[in-house]
Order: sequence, then C-alpha cells, then structure tokens
Amino acid sequence: MDPANLTAGAAADAIRDGAITSVELVSACLERVRAVEPAVQAWAFLDPEHALEQAGRADRLRQQGQPLGPLHGVPVGLKDIIDTAGMPTENGTVLHQGRIPRSDATVVSMLRAAGAVILGKTVTTECAYFAPGKTRNPHNPEHTPGGSSSGSAAAVAAGMVPLALGSQTNGSTIRPAAFCGVVGFKPSYGLIPRTGMLALSGTLDHVGLFARTTEDIALLAEQLAGYDPHDPASRPRARVPFQRISNEEPPVEPMLAFVKTPHWDRLDAEAKAAFAELVESLGDRVEELALAPSIAQAGNWHQCIMDCEMAANLEREWELGRDRLSEPLCSLIERGRDVRAVDYQRALRAIPELAEGFDELFTQRYDAFLTPSAPGTAPKGLSSTGDPCFCTLWTLCGLPAISLPLLQGSSGLPLGVQLVGRRDYDARLLRTARWLAARVKSQA
Amino acid sequence: MDPANLTAGAAADAIRDGAITSVELVSACLERVRAVEPAVQAWAFLDPEHALEQAGRADRLRQQGQPLGPLHGVPVGLKDIIDTAGMPTENGTVLHQGRIPRSDATVVSMLRAAGAVILGKTVTTECAYFAPGKTRNPHNPEHTPGGSSSGSAAAVAAGMVPLALGSQTNGSTIRPAAFCGVVGFKPSYGLIPRTGMLALSGTLDHVGLFARTTEDIALLAEQLAGYDPHDPASRPRARVPFQRISNEEPPVEPMLAFVKTPHWDRLDAEAKAAFAELVESLGDRVEELALAPSIAQAGNWHQCIMDCEMAANLEREWELGRDRLSEPLCSLIERGRDVRAVDYQRALRAIPELAEGFDELFTQRYDAFLTPSAPGTAPKGLSSTGDPCFCTLWTLCGLPAISLPLLQGSSGLPLGVQLVGRRDYDARLLRTARWLAARVKSQA
Repeated sequence: MDPANLTAGAAADAIRDGAITSVELVSACLERVRAVEPAVQAWAFLDPEHALEQAGRADRLRQQGQPLGPLHGVPVGLKDIIDTAGMPTENGTVLHQGRIPRSDATVVSMLRAAGAVILGKTVTTECAYFAPGKTRNPHNPEHTPGGSSSGSAAAVAAGMVPLALGSQTNGSTIRPAAFCGVVGFKPSYGLIPRTGMLALSGTLDHVGLFARTTEDIALLAEQLAGYDPHDPASRPRARVPFQRISNEEPPVEPMLAFVKTPHWDRLDAEAKAAFAELVESLGDRVEELALAPSIAQAGNWHQCIMDCEMAANLEREWELGRDRLSEPLCSLIERGRDVRAVDYQRALRAIPELAEGFDELFTQRYDAFLTPSAPGTAPKGLSSTGDPCFCTLWTLCGLPAISLPLLQGSSGLPLGVQLVGRRDYDARLLRTARWLAARVKSQA
Repeated sequence: MDPANLTAGAAADAIRDGAITSVELVSACLERVRAVEPAVQAWAFLDPEHALEQAGRADRLRQQGQPLGPLHGVPVGLKDIIDTAGMPTENGTVLHQGRIPRSDATVVSMLRAAGAVILGKTVTTECAYFAPGKTRNPHNPEHTPGGSSSGSAAAVAAGMVPLALGSQTNGSTIRPAAFCGVVGFKPSYGLIPRTGMLALSGTLDHVGLFARTTEDIALLAEQLAGYDPHDPASRPRARVPFQRISNEEPPVEPMLAFVKTPHWDRLDAEAKAAFAELVESLGDRVEELALAPSIAQAGNWHQCIMDCEMAANLEREWELGRDRLSEPLCSLIERGRDVRAVDYQRALRAIPELAEGFDELFTQRYDAFLTPSAPGTAPKGLSSTGDPCFCTLWTLCGLPAISLPLLQGSSGLPLGVQLVGRRDYDARLLRTARWLAARVKSQA
C-alpha cells in the first residue's frame, strides 16, 4: 500500500511500531505531490528538503527512544494564513509577498509539540475572502475546489497529505471539504486558538480541520483544543478526550433534525433529491425541523459583523495597497467602513440570543442538525469558490459543524452532508458523525 | 454611641454578639435619615417599614440559632440603577417611573445571602450619566455631592447607612466618594457582576462600593466578588479573602508612583499644594511617574466607547422618549449613533495595549499609583456633578481604584486621594490603601 493513502492515525501507529519511517511517509506524500500537483495546484509553499529534514529528525528521535507525540512524523499542510516561523506566510495577497513570520501560530506550536511534520503551506483565496487562488478540484480540474481553504481541502483529497488546517469565517472549511470530498470540521467558537493566524473577524474566525476520516479529525482536534490567553475567544477548560468519545458507540441511537435553513431554494434539484433520499433512509432517527422565520436575519448580522471587523483588521492593507486588492475585497472593506457601531453592537447581541435557542433544541431533543454543506456539488469554473450560505448561521453562532463526503452527484463529484452540533460538545458531534457515516454505509 | 455611626464590620460583630439587634441598628439609621435627609436628599426610595421587617427577620434568625452571614442585619443602600425585586428601580429617568423589577440584580442576591438589610434606593443622576438628581453634599448643601452615584456617597457620608453600592462608567464612584469624604472603591473590571443593573457600556461599567473605612470596603467586596455567567465580563476565579489580605501589614513598605495624568492643569491650586505636601511627606515611598504622551488619547477612546455603547443600550429610551431625556444625554446618544464600527473597534483594541503597559509598571516597581480623585473639592452649585477626568483612564483600563478621604480643602470640604492598583490585585490595593491612611494619620 502507498503510505500516502494511510490515514493520519494509521500512519502514526505505523511509525510508532516501526513499520514505516516518517521519511518514507513524507517521501510518499512528496511523490504524490509531484504526480498530482501540476493539475491540482494546492500548495502556496512547499520545500521538500525541509519537510524531509523534519521527518529525518522525527525518525532519529524515535531511534533514540524519545517519547513520541500522537502525530509523530505525520505530515500536515497549513493554509497560508497560518504563521510558520521561518517559512513564508503570504495570506493569499501580493501585499504580503515574501512575508516570513518570526514565530509560529499557536496551532503550529501545538502540531510541532505533537510531533507533526509541517509539509508546507496550502493555497488560500485572497486574505481568506472570495478571490480564488490557483487551486483546482482534484475530482475535476474544471471545477472549483471551494474556498477559502482551497489548498488544504484539495491536498487532503488528492492524497498529498493526510491532515491539513484551514479556517472558517463563513463557509471556508465546510464548503471546500464538501466540494473536494473530504471530512471538514469547524469546531466550536473558541475551542482551538487562532493566535498567529490572519485575523479577519475576531467574532467569526475559526480554525478549520481537514482529514479523510472522522477518526483523523478527532486525533487532530485533540492536539489543537486548548487554552490560549492571547486569543480572546479562548477559555480555560478541561482537556477533552476527543478520540475516546468520538470513537465510542453512542449510548442511544442519535436523533437528528433535518434543517432546510432559509436557503433551501438555492439547493439544486439533484442535491434536493439526494437529501430527501438520505432523510428517508434514516427513518425515525431524523425529523424535519423548521427554524423560526427570524433566522433569515442571521445572514445580515453575519455580514454586518464580517464587513466591519474585516474593515478594521485589513485597514492597513486597504490604506496602503488597495490598488492591489481585488474588487470584491475592496468593496467589502468599503462597506465595512460605513457600518455604524450601534448596528454592529445589535448584530453582536443577536449571537447569544440565537445560540440560546439552538442550545435548547440540542438539550431537549436533537444530537445534531442534518443539513447540506453547500447548495450542490462543486460548481464548474474557477472564478468563484461557491456559495457559503449553508454555513453562515452555524459560523455566526459558533456551533461545531462537520462536512462528511457521504453523497455524490451524477457528475461523480462529491456532495457534502453537514452535521451541526451543540456548542462545546464537539467530541459528541464527531461521535454522531461516525454513527451517521456507518449507518449510511450499511444501507448503501 | 449612636449605632448609626458604627462601621459595617463593628455593627455586624455587635449583632452577632447580641450587643445590639438589627432592628436597633436599622432604627438608628432611619432616625438619622429623618434628621438629615431633608437637607441631603440621598434617597430615591425608602420604605422604613420594609427595612424594619427585614431587620426583624434577621433578629429572629439569630434568636433561632440560624447561621449568620457576614453582613447579618446590616443595612445597605443601593443606587437606583440596581434592580431590586418588588422595590422600585427607576434609573433616574421619568421614562422608568414606577418600574418595579421582578428579580434582584446579582449583587442584591449576594447581599441578601450575606444577611444584609436592603434599606432603600439611592439617588442617581439621569441614567447614571450627567444630569444631576436632587442630592446635596452633606458637608455643604450648596455643593454637589458628585455623581452619578450621588445618593450612595451622600448617604454613607451622612451616616444614614454604613454601606452603599453605586456604579462607575467614568468617574461615578470615585468622584462622589471624594466629594462626600467617604471611601469609594471601583474594583477591577469583571470582579463584581453587573447583571441586573442598568447597562450603559458593557466595556466600561463597573459596580462601585461606598463605606466609611477601607476595612468595610474589604468586608463588602468579599461578599460581592464572584462569577456570574450572565455577565460577559465575569470570569470564574478563586475566591479572594479580601479582608484577610487587606487587613494584614504589607510585607515590605509599599512603593507608590505619583501620577499627575494629562489633566494636572485642571487641578485647582489648593489641591496641587495639598498633593505636593502629601508626596513630600511620603519621602522615598513615592516617586513621580510621567505617563507616555500617547495616554492623552485615552479620553477619546473612552468617549468613543461610552458614546456608542450607551447609544445602543439606551436606543429604546431615545426612540420612544427622547423628549423626556435631558439635553446632554440626548447629545451623547446622537453622537454615539454616528460612531463608526471601525473607530469603535480601534478604541476597544487600545484597552489591552494600555493595560499591558500599566501591568508592567505594577509588576516591576509600583504597588499603586497615587493621583487625585477629582480636580479639587466638590464644586459649588448643583447643576453639575463635577469633572471625572481623573478617573477616565483607570475606568477604561479596568484597573482597581479607591478614593480615600485623607485631605481637606480650606473650605472644610473633603479632598480625595486616589490609589490605583494592578488589575485583579484588588485586595492588595486595599492593603496599600490601609497602609497609606495609617501613614498619613501618623504624620498628621
């Protein structure tokens, strides 16, 4: 078996047991990169020698009998908005060309502490907003990979790396995961620290995780969940055994709520049919849940917050280099500069009110909401990364969400199924996701 | 001795020991109210019968051998922006006339749990902003008591109640405490929960404490510090033994920084001379500290935040009843409605940057900053509550501050001395305050 096809968990076990070395694993991934990168173009920066150096160091540590981290010798790709000391981090804009951070983002320190090899930096849209990068969908190069974490999703899908990190401020993890047919996980707001990542919107920014299995997501999340006093969203809390919880069987069969959201009309006919069939197949384990009509407002609140927080965070870029920013990003910043503080506060206040309503639904009846990840499979063309509308509400409320590659369109392109869980019950959401995947598989 | 002159600590001890009853203590306070209230007018609501009922209940509990709280049977006054279940809370505006909350503010629940008797509600300026209420300075009725916690400061100063609560969003505790000659304490941001109080500015609002001694402040603070999940500023933390820490001798003699602030020119000549003398008398225990010139910006950040947060919080009052709001409050709200979200965010970001600078000064050298509480003694006239400029910076940064009645103007009116401490080191600030008071007394 090609080591590049191993899951991260299997690869870590194989390295620990001496069945393969990290150098062999990383070499296999680099071989895959050589084969598919010309078509996929997932990487913004990749230095094979540096990756192999890290792998060699990991192998030497094992030979010396040093303690091994849970990701010892396993390569990880990082969206190019995540700072890496001494390695370029250009945030998808020519304005930051040649930028080399002096220190690692908190998540990068955590990955290194877990023994991971930083394979390289993956392509992001411009400043993790709409203007696409060069990446193409590994399933069909004429289709978008989704964004803004385009390279992370595509690299994992194409087998170039078993794990990758991205981010999500609207739909930037769930959507590319769905389009590329991998598992994408946006944790609860504040669970994984964002220090050292390009800040777009402190209220909406989340770290995003990509893997080929839910088990790998749990393994990765367990390394990254933690308190960081430099991230105002971070709170000290007990260490959650993600893998233990998510890998156990649910004590009772989960109950899902099928949520169409206010954007159901945007879903294409094929996806509508696929979801109807999925819901049908789940029998009494799912029931349709209509959200309150006021939920339609959530998109406006999200936009208000994102516009004015991005305008504040990217003020310097806009002031000094707006001629080299894309038109959509300039428009957003200009819109954001006009937002009034009273409207911004009103939008901020809506979040806990909305979240409380959802919390009640999860407490009283549902293990998770079942909903599309995107309005269909990856759209044709590379000029847009697709519509994030099926992610906005959950991002706004900070609920954990996972996209599972359980369905397929007639084109053969993957169609993502999104599960959304109770805030701060991330490990349970992963457990429900494993249950759903097993159930769908058993009925296929 | 008139029980109304007892400190809260002495009164609680006397009640516990059976030397007096709560009914005797509350009766003495009510007697004092009858004598001085016509001149001082500190109370917005006071129902003697209800107060005596609570006192009678406290006495019965003691007779039954029930466990007694640290404030068992001790009366407390509450600024009329603090919700009391079944007792009017009118926030100093005709718009809320007759408003009777259904539940207690968190601090009121805490006071009741400690055994306190809620004597009544004290006068506040209109919505705790500038337009004065009816209260006069107990030392001279032609002078302002300061504001916005006018009634709380005046009631404690006049011996009508040993303890009172107020609030501070700019200088609303420190300034009236200084003008009325009592001890006023604004704790660290987030230390005492604000749930159930009129919200002006979530970023700047603090609960304020009034007493006649620093020991009583420690007793009161110990009952009120605590976590409240409904107050976003509140954080779970260890219970601090305020009284034990603040009543012990400092292990080494404290070192103070004499901080003139950017507003030194506003201080009147008499106050300048009094501070020069105080600093002189402290010898090598104080040194003058010049703040960075950029600190002058702090006033603008404070105003930006206060304007737009008050505009958001009082939006309903402004929309439905602006014809019955004062002109200064309307102007503030109208100014606040025009603040841009990007400017608001810039002001919010300045807080941790400023606070970090102060933290370094406290860590490396100073136990507290010594600075005036106000530009002089209470100004003559009742049309204004005076200038909060000497409080703005510390309120913005959430640093604990205490006003001590250590000096006096030639008019006989009290002149407050403010000590400002390291954030979240409130008990140590009280210890430094006791040391300073003792040192000044020993040299008098």
